[in-house]
Amino acid sequence: MAKSHALTSNMGVDYVLVYRFATTASKDKAKATARFEELVQRLASVGLATEVRNGENHSLLVFARVASEEHMYGEIYRSRVKDWIHGVRPAQPAKEVRISLEQEPLTEAERFRIIYQLITNPQSEGGAGITPKKGEWENIESVFALHDHVYNKEWIKKWSTQWLLTPEDFDDIRNRLGEKIAFYFAFTQSYFTFLLFPAGMGLFSWLFLGHFSSIYAFATSLWCIVFVEYWKHQEHDLSIRWGVRGVSSIETKRHEFKPATETTDPITGEKIQIYPDLQRLQRQALQVPFAIACVLVLGTLIATCFGIEVFISEVYDGPGKSLLVFLPTVILTTVMPLLSGMLTTAATRLTDYENYGTESQYERALTSKIFILNFITSYLPVFLTAFVYVPFGSLIVPYLDIFSLTVRPFAESEKQLKAPSPAQFTINPARLRKQVIYFTVTAQIVGFAMEVIVPYLKRQGFIKIKQMQSNRAKKAGGIAPSAAAEDPPEEKEFLARVRSEAELDVYDVYADLREMVIQYGYLALFSVVWPLVPVSFLVNNWVELRADAVKICVEMQRPTPWRADTIGPWLDALSFLTWLGSITMAALVYLFSNDGLGPDGVPSDIKGWGLLLSILFSEHIHLGARWAVAHAISKIDSPGRQKARRDRYITREKYYKESLDQTHRLPPISEKAEEITRSGLEEEARQGSLNTANPEDKFWGRQRNWREAAQIGKGLIERAVPDEKEMAAEKKQL
Amino acid sequence: MAKSHALTSNMGVDYVLVYRFATTASKDKAKATARFEELVQRLASVGLATEVRNGENHSLLVFARVASEEHMYGEIYRSRVKDWIHGVRPAQPAKEVRISLEQEPLTEAERFRIIYQLITNPQSEGGAGITPKKGEWENIESVFALHDHVYNKEWIKKWSTQWLLTPEDFDDIRNRLGEKIAFYFAFTQSYFTFLLFPAGMGLFSWLFLGHFSSIYAFATSLWCIVFVEYWKHQEHDLSIRWGVRGVSSIETKRHEFKPATETTDPITGEKIQIYPDLQRLQRQALQVPFAIACVLVLGTLIATCFGIEVFISEVYDGPGKSLLVFLPTVILTTVMPLLSGMLTTAATRLTDYENYGTESQYERALTSKIFILNFITSYLPVFLTAFVYVPFGSLIVPYLDIFSLTVRPFAESEKQLKAPSPAQFTINPARLRKQVIYFTVTAQIVGFAMEVIVPYLKRQGFIKIKQMQSNRAKKAGGIAPSAAAEDPPEEKEFLARVRSEAELDVYDVYADLREMVIQYGYLALFSVVWPLVPVSFLVNNWVELRADAVKICVEMQRPTPWRADTIGPWLDALSFLTWLGSITMAALVYLFSNDGLGPDGVPSDIKGWGLLLSILFSEHIHLGARWAVAHAISKIDSPGRQKARRDRYITREKYYKESLDQTHRLPPISEKAEEITRSGLEEEARQGSLNTANPEDKFWGRQRNWREAAQIGKGLIERAVPDEKEMAAEKKQL
Repeated sequence: MAKSHALTSNMGVDYVLVYRFATTASKDKAKATARFEELVQRLASVGLATEVRNGENHSLLVFARVASEEHMYGEIYRSRVKDWIHGVRPAQPAKEVRISLEQEPLTEAERFRIIYQLITNPQSEGGAGITPKKGEWENIESVFALHDHVYNKEWIKKWSTQWLLTPEDFDDIRNRLGEKIAFYFAFTQSYFTFLLFPAGMGLFSWLFLGHFSSIYAFATSLWCIVFVEYWKHQEHDLSIRWGVRGVSSIETKRHEFKPATETTDPITGEKIQIYPDLQRLQRQALQVPFAIACVLVLGTLIATCFGIEVFISEVYDGPGKSLLVFLPTVILTTVMPLLSGMLTTAATRLTDYENYGTESQYERALTSKIFILNFITSYLPVFLTAFVYVPFGSLIVPYLDIFSLTVRPFAESEKQLKAPSPAQFTINPARLRKQVIYFTVTAQIVGFAMEVIVPYLKRQGFIKIKQMQSNRAKKAGGIAPSAAAEDPPEEKEFLARVRSEAELDVYDVYADLREMVIQYGYLALFSVVWPLVPVSFLVNNWVELRADAVKICVEMQRPTPWRADTIGPWLDALSFLTWLGSITMAALVYLFSNDGLGPDGVPSDIKGWGLLLSILFSEHIHLGARWAVAHAISKIDSPGRQKARRDRYITREKYYKESLDQTHRLPPISEKAEEITRSGLEEEARQGSLNTANPEDKFWGRQRNWREAAQIGKGLIERAVPDEKEMAAEKKQL
Repeated sequence: MAKSHALTSNMGVDYVLVYRFATTASKDKAKATARFEELVQRLASVGLATEVRNGENHSLLVFARVASEEHMYGEIYRSRVKDWIHGVRPAQPAKEVRISLEQEPLTEAERFRIIYQLITNPQSEGGAGITPKKGEWENIESVFALHDHVYNKEWIKKWSTQWLLTPEDFDDIRNRLGEKIAFYFAFTQSYFTFLLFPAGMGLFSWLFLGHFSSIYAFATSLWCIVFVEYWKHQEHDLSIRWGVRGVSSIETKRHEFKPATETTDPITGEKIQIYPDLQRLQRQALQVPFAIACVLVLGTLIATCFGIEVFISEVYDGPGKSLLVFLPTVILTTVMPLLSGMLTTAATRLTDYENYGTESQYERALTSKIFILNFITSYLPVFLTAFVYVPFGSLIVPYLDIFSLTVRPFAESEKQLKAPSPAQFTINPARLRKQVIYFTVTAQIVGFAMEVIVPYLKRQGFIKIKQMQSNRAKKAGGIAPSAAAEDPPEEKEFLARVRSEAELDVYDVYADLREMVIQYGYLALFSVVWPLVPVSFLVNNWVELRADAVKICVEMQRPTPWRADTIGPWLDALSFLTWLGSITMAALVYLFSNDGLGPDGVPSDIKGWGLLLSILFSEHIHLGARWAVAHAISKIDSPGRQKARRDRYITREKYYKESLDQTHRLPPISEKAEEITRSGLEEEARQGSLNTANPEDKFWGRQRNWREAAQIGKGLIERAVPDEKEMAAEKKQL
């Protein structure tokens, strides 16, 4: 029973802070103590009660929960006012937070977000100013909420038995984990549903249309456009449904931003921190050498491995071939993660150096760099095969001679190494298909294993090792007592759980999104090579959605619920890939239209103008279709849009009524006019005597009200309009 | 003196309504009288005083001026509230209109706009509901304000002596004639300034770089992108400067809109008029046959004339050649205006039929159709020469034989008519240049004459004829008395002026804008053919700007001042032309790179892949450059943006202060914590006795405040962090 209690109850803890007081870098006890004291004091000062327990590896676990609601209410109010000012909420929030909360109760996600902000916001804005891992608070290793295991269990159970997820399921995630994660799941689900059509099309095409079907390419490309545009529409709708439309325009300042100058606005007196755009541009210019370096480094690696592989599998015919074919794979799997890790670090450093003022700018800049890296590692091999190996193979392969150096030790006779003449050499037409199948099936499964299963096994292994170590230490009477040694018995299991959660990774929703976007890329760019690609993805993503849920629940700390109204910069990546797909699909269809064999390594077989014309056509059809699809989709109504329209209408109506009230107070004019008529005679007399009146007064004095004007007008009409007879007479005269 | 008074004074008249009581269609006196009575009554009911005078040709002139300011104030208030709700003004306008007016005095343009709205707005919204030329008010021929001749004279004098116009000049126009017209002038001025660079570049290129310089093409195309993007930036800035940012999102309902169904929103109770988008799409689909018809009709005409011209000037060698060369020009100048008039009418009908709900949608749809028409008539001839005649001439010209039928009567011998064999025939390389020069110099001058000088002469002629007619009528003792016959002597000259202004045309700012955009098209699309194009435009536009000012003052009724925050749909046309320019410029440079002669009529000389590759490159450079330029320009600050930012900051700051007030009212927590400490002992005792407390209370009971937590934490740190010595010992052990 105790165990189930430890799993079901979080002891009312809102957040756990892990304070690592001794690191390899610093072991200053006095400083650590003073800092810790400040930590708990600061937490107390924003109305958070704290409890301290021992943590693993020279750390303390600080449990915090809301004790005084006033501070939290203040934070809620500030957050809601901010939303209102930025147009996220239609109306000003009620001044009294309790009333505001009654009107709109806090969701769990909002509550956790607010408390997190209470802990991390600067003191000047009413927070505790504790910035985990940054600046003076680098000892705070993490700030996380505890998992709600009851909910998690239900969540996974529900999803694993449900074929399709409904919007209500995402509402649920949004209420628990915040909009940012909910958007990821909603996007993946939307992508999954969208895959149904290409999957059906692909199956049909695979069965009946044969290789490199232009029909499949056209239908899929068009559907990709529909998907991206429809997702934009859906995103908009979801953001209204979740009341977060516009939150991405609320800019969060980066703590790390280093302004070059700080000035005061002469009129508002606002302090402005400036970092000149030109200076930043200079720093951003480093992106060009960076991108070139990425292409060179990763490109060389990929091209080399590619060359070795082609050489070994298609040129080389010596001993050890069965082993040597694995050589490139070994090189790739060992060197590639190393290199891309290094380049990712370089990208992060570069983005740091670019010194962005807001979080969103920083995120966008970093994402674009990461996307370039992923683009190269994911798609370059296929590009090489499709657009270098196949068309130019017969020219290039003879030069692969140099690789004979690599395999010379294994060669028995010179003959085995002799490069074939272009005439001898034939392209392996299955290579491209095999590669695409590798990336879209094998790599997906491997990726899934690396993401979910391996970390799980690793963790289990670690726990085992730790237990063994502590057992050994106990036997040996080691000096470092276990962190759990002093736990009160009734808290033992709870604290053990917290300690294990403290060691989990932080969930990065963008990594999962990136995975989806890269996967989408294969579909948009190359799926015409092997039309079963979407079928594979369909199966994969059904599992992926559930696996990610499990991952969040089991392998990650409970994520801090952030808000978002979009999947952010990845949307641009989607558009880019869709556009690029219109080019690659056309080029592939054109190049391989001869029965799927391609130009067979002889570039002179390709008609340059034909290739370019297909690309040109396809791209412009793409641009036109995108415009048309976006236009058509913008006409689609949705519950979210209806809600937004209704809110707007109500606000407008309210103000209009007020303004119309004003005008209704005016007396009806026609009565007034008659009054004037009654007093008209005297007026006339006076007017007549005023011979000295200026021409303007005279002009306006001739008809004193609308009745007189109407009379005069009637007279003029009477005289002017000729009778039918007169007109006939006039006609005769002419 | 009387004359100058008639010119300088408008007698305090705000608007003149021309009521035509007898038309060829209806001559019902009673009905006309009743309608007229309603007219003056309605005007009176919104606080407008009226005076009636005789007009020309069975019409009455109704003079209106504001008598009761309450109605106008109501209208001002409503307009300002509307602006505020739509986010055009940052803050709610003062409830008391007089205060609001003190804070922001009415400009003349705003006053005239408000009065116009007072006259035309539906009665339900507090207006008089008089819709000129529409529905039951089709007898109201026009509603116009009188020219301010003093200001007009100054305006023209100032501009004709000033080399460059300043933003203050446009402010002045904005205050007088409204933002819509001010935007036209600002745009033309901006375009004029922008032309300086291409003009310089063109002159340099003409002198030193020779024909079809790729350097010129690249520089000009890039500069075109800069211009369009910079204009967007400037437009934004001007709209803030003039306080109209966002007015285009205030949607004006079209009176002509015929809803298919009318429903009531179940929640708001708002009446919604619906015309289903799908139904409209069906009607919009008619645009496709319409566009095809335009291309066919105008294209056939142009191609025929083109063929005849080529035939006569380059193939035919018979008598009458010197006269016959004018044949195509004669056909074009007679048939073309007729056809394009008919097609314009068809476009308007089609747009009416498409049944748009708002004015802006209608305008956009009509503009795009008009643009297509203008595109064909303006650019098709050059396209034909550059991309049909020059590359395929030798194949096509022999077929021009059929035109020999046209000229057969003039031919003396069969020999003169014999079509040349492809080998004999040579392309006239000067044709393209001549054509471009015609369109960019001759046609501009002719257009200027047609626009400004001819109407002036026409009007003068009309006036003469009318005088002669009336003189003759007087002599003959005709039945229809002159309109001026009963004018009081002191009003005679004033009324004569009003009558002549009543007969002037209504100024259509979009027609002038269209002219500029079409002119820009020649620059963006073809200027590489003859690099002096921008020089010609530079001169032309200096005159054009001033001539348009004269046109508005002399040949048009004073325009009703409308608001706008953009040049509207023409901006899209500019972007489109710039994009298309990236294709045509590249194609022209590639085709004519052989010393400016082009492929000389032999299509096999053209390398398809070369042409397509240059187009592909150029277009993608264009797309990339546009993105980069837009990004760079978005970084440029401007006074308008600064103002907007400041306004926003002030509003935010105000609300933030309010919200921070709330949180400051909370007692500082640290003191509170100490209070708890003091009462801690009793608490502890009580807590101890509660053995039955649940684990949660127990958990949180161990440390009752931050000081205790800090103490416990200190203890844990003390015990956990090993001394250096111990660590060394530990190391040895391992």
